[in-house]
Amino acid sequence: MRLRLTPRDTSFFDLLAASAAHLVTGANLLAELLGADRPTRKALAKQMSDAEHLADEATHQIMRRLNQTFVTPFDRDDIYGLASALDDCMDFMEEAADLIVLYKIDELPARVADQVQVLQRSAELTAEAMPRLRSMENLAEYWVEVNRLENQADKSHRKLLAQMFDEITDPILLMKLKEVVEKLEDAADAFEKVANMVETIALKES
Amino acid sequence: MRLRLTPRDTSFFDLLAASAAHLVTGANLLAELLGADRPTRKALAKQMSDAEHLADEATHQIMRRLNQTFVTPFDRDDIYGLASALDDCMDFMEEAADLIVLYKIDELPARVADQVQVLQRSAELTAEAMPRLRSMENLAEYWVEVNRLENQADKSHRKLLAQMFDEITDPILLMKLKEVVEKLEDAADAFEKVANMVETIALKES
Amino acid sequence: MRLRLTPRDTSFFDLLAASAAHLVTGANLLAELLGADRPTRKALAKQMSDAEHLADEATHQIMRRLNQTFVTPFDRDDIYGLASALDDCMDFMEEAADLIVLYKIDELPARVADQVQVLQRSAELTAEAMPRLRSMENLAEYWVEVNRLENQADKSHRKLLAQMFDEITDPILLMKLKEVVEKLEDAADAFEKVANMVETIALKES
Repeated sequence: MRLRLTPRDTSFFDLLAASAAHLVTGANLLAELLGADRPTRKALAKQMSDAEHLADEATHQIMRRLNQTFVTPFDRDDIYGLASALDDCMDFMEEAADLIVLYKIDELPARVADQVQVLQRSAELTAEAMPRLRSMENLAEYWVEVNRLENQADKSHRKLLAQMFDEITDPILLMKLKEVVEKLEDAADAFEKVANMVETIALKES
Repeated sequence: MRLRLTPRDTSFFDLLAASAAHLVTGANLLAELLGADRPTRKALAKQMSDAEHLADEATHQIMRRLNQTFVTPFDRDDIYGLASALDDCMDFMEEAADLIVLYKIDELPARVADQVQVLQRSAELTAEAMPRLRSMENLAEYWVEVNRLENQADKSHRKLLAQMFDEITDPILLMKLKEVVEKLEDAADAFEKVANMVETIALKES
Repeated sequence: MRLRLTPRDTSFFDLLAASAAHLVTGANLLAELLGADRPTRKALAKQMSDAEHLADEATHQIMRRLNQTFVTPFDRDDIYGLASALDDCMDFMEEAADLIVLYKIDELPARVADQVQVLQRSAELTAEAMPRLRSMENLAEYWVEVNRLENQADKSHRKLLAQMFDEITDPILLMKLKEVVEKLEDAADAFEKVANMVETIALKES
C-alpha cells in the first residue's frame, strides 16, 4: 500500500462515476428510441436532452471542484481530460437521437441496433470502471474490452456504410442516415478515448 | 494586488488582442458576403482570405515569442492553446466564406444570417475580453455570454438543418448548404472553446 | 554540444522512426491503389489494413515504453503527442483506401492523384526527419516543406471540390467521392500537425 502524505479529495471518483452513470442512461434511451414509434421517439429525445444537461452539469461540477482543490487524487489535467471525454460520449449520443427525430427518419438499418448495443455495453463498462480509479485495480479488463468493442463497432460501421450505399437509392435519405450512423461511430470513438485515458492514468500511477 | 517578483512579458496580451481583432474583421466580412451579389462575394472572399493570412501570421508571432520568452504572464501551454483556438475560429469562418463562392451558392436560407450574427457578437466579445486577461478582471460576463450564444447557435443550427432537409429537394444543393452551415457551427464551437479556455485560465490564476 | 547529466532512453527515436516508416508504406500503397483495377484494389486495401495494424502496434510500443521510462529524451507529453499524431496520419490514409473499395468507386478525379502525391512526399519527409530528433538538427527544412505541401494540398482540395460539384451530377457518387477526398485532406492535415509538433519540440529544446 502506498502512503498518502497529503490528504486528497477523493470525491472526484464519485463525481466521475456520477458523470459516467448519465452515459448508461443515455445509451439505454438511445436503444429505446430505435424501437419506438415517432411520437414516443420525440418524448425519448426530450429525455435524452435532459440527460445530456445533467451530464453537462456533472462535468461543470468536476471543473469547478478541480479549480478549488489544491491536491487532486491524480494529475489535474488527467481529471480535466477524463471529465471532458465523458462529456463527449454523451454529446454524440444526444446528437444522434436528436437527428433521428429532426430528420423524421422512419426506419433505420438493422445494423444501427448493433452500433447502439456496443454503446450500451461501453457505457456500462465505463460506469463500472470509474469507481475502480480509487484503487487503480482491475482496470485493464475494462480498457481492453472497450478497445475490442470499438474495433468491432468500426468494422460494423464500415459494413453498414457500404450496405447503405448499395441499397438506398434516395440520396437525401442516405445523407440523413449517414449523419446518424456517423454520430454513433463518433460516440464509440469517444468511449474508446475515455478508456485510453484511463489506461494512461493507471500506467502513470502504477 | 498581487506582487510580481519576476518581470513578465506583457506583450502577449497585445498579441492575443491583435489576433482576436482579426476575428471581428472576419465575422464582419462574412456578414457582408451573405448580402452581396456573386461578383462582390468573390472580392469579399479574397479579403477574407487576406484576413485569414494576417490571423495566421499573428498566431505564428505568438508562437515564436512564446519560444523566446522564459517567463510568461500565465501558463505557457495555455497561451499556446489560446492562440491556436483563436486561429481555429478564423479558419472555419474563412472556409465557410470560400465554400459559398466555390459552390456558387446563390441563395442561403435566412437562418444562416442568424448564425453569422452570433459569430459577429462572439468575435466582438472575444476581442474585448483579450486585453482584460492582463488584470483577469470582468472576464466571467464574457465567457458566460459566449456560452449562451453557442447554445443558441446550436439550437438554431439544428432547426436550420431540419428545415433544409424538409424544404430543399435538390440533393446536391443540400450537400453544399449543409457543408456551409456546418462550418459556421464549427466556428461558433471554436469561439466557445476560446471562452472555456479563458475561464480555465482565470480560475487557475484566481 | 550539450552535456547529458542523466542517461536517456534514446530508443524513442528508433520507435518514432519505425512508426513514420509505416506511413511511407501506407502512402505508397494508396498511390498504387489509385492506378489499380478493382480486384487488385481489394488486395492493396488488405495490405493497407495490415500496415495500419503495424503502425498501431508501433504506437502502442511507444506508449508502453513511455510508461516504463523515467527519463525521456524530451518532454513525455510531446512524445505521446507525436506518436498519436503519426498514428492519425495512417488512420486517415487507411480509411481513404478502404472507402474506395467499400464504395466500389471505379474512377477517381485526376486531382486525387495530386493529393496522394503530397501524402507520399509528406510521409518521406516525416520518416527522414524522425531520426534527426536525436540531434535536433536540420529539422526546420522539414517542417517548412510539410507546411508548404499542406497549403498546396488545401488549395488543390478546394479546387477539386468545386470541380466535383460542377461536373458530377449523380449525388450518391458525389457523396462517395467527397468522403474519400476529405479523408485524404484529413491525412494531409495530420502530417502538418506532426510537423508543427516537431517545430514546437525543436524550439523548446533549442
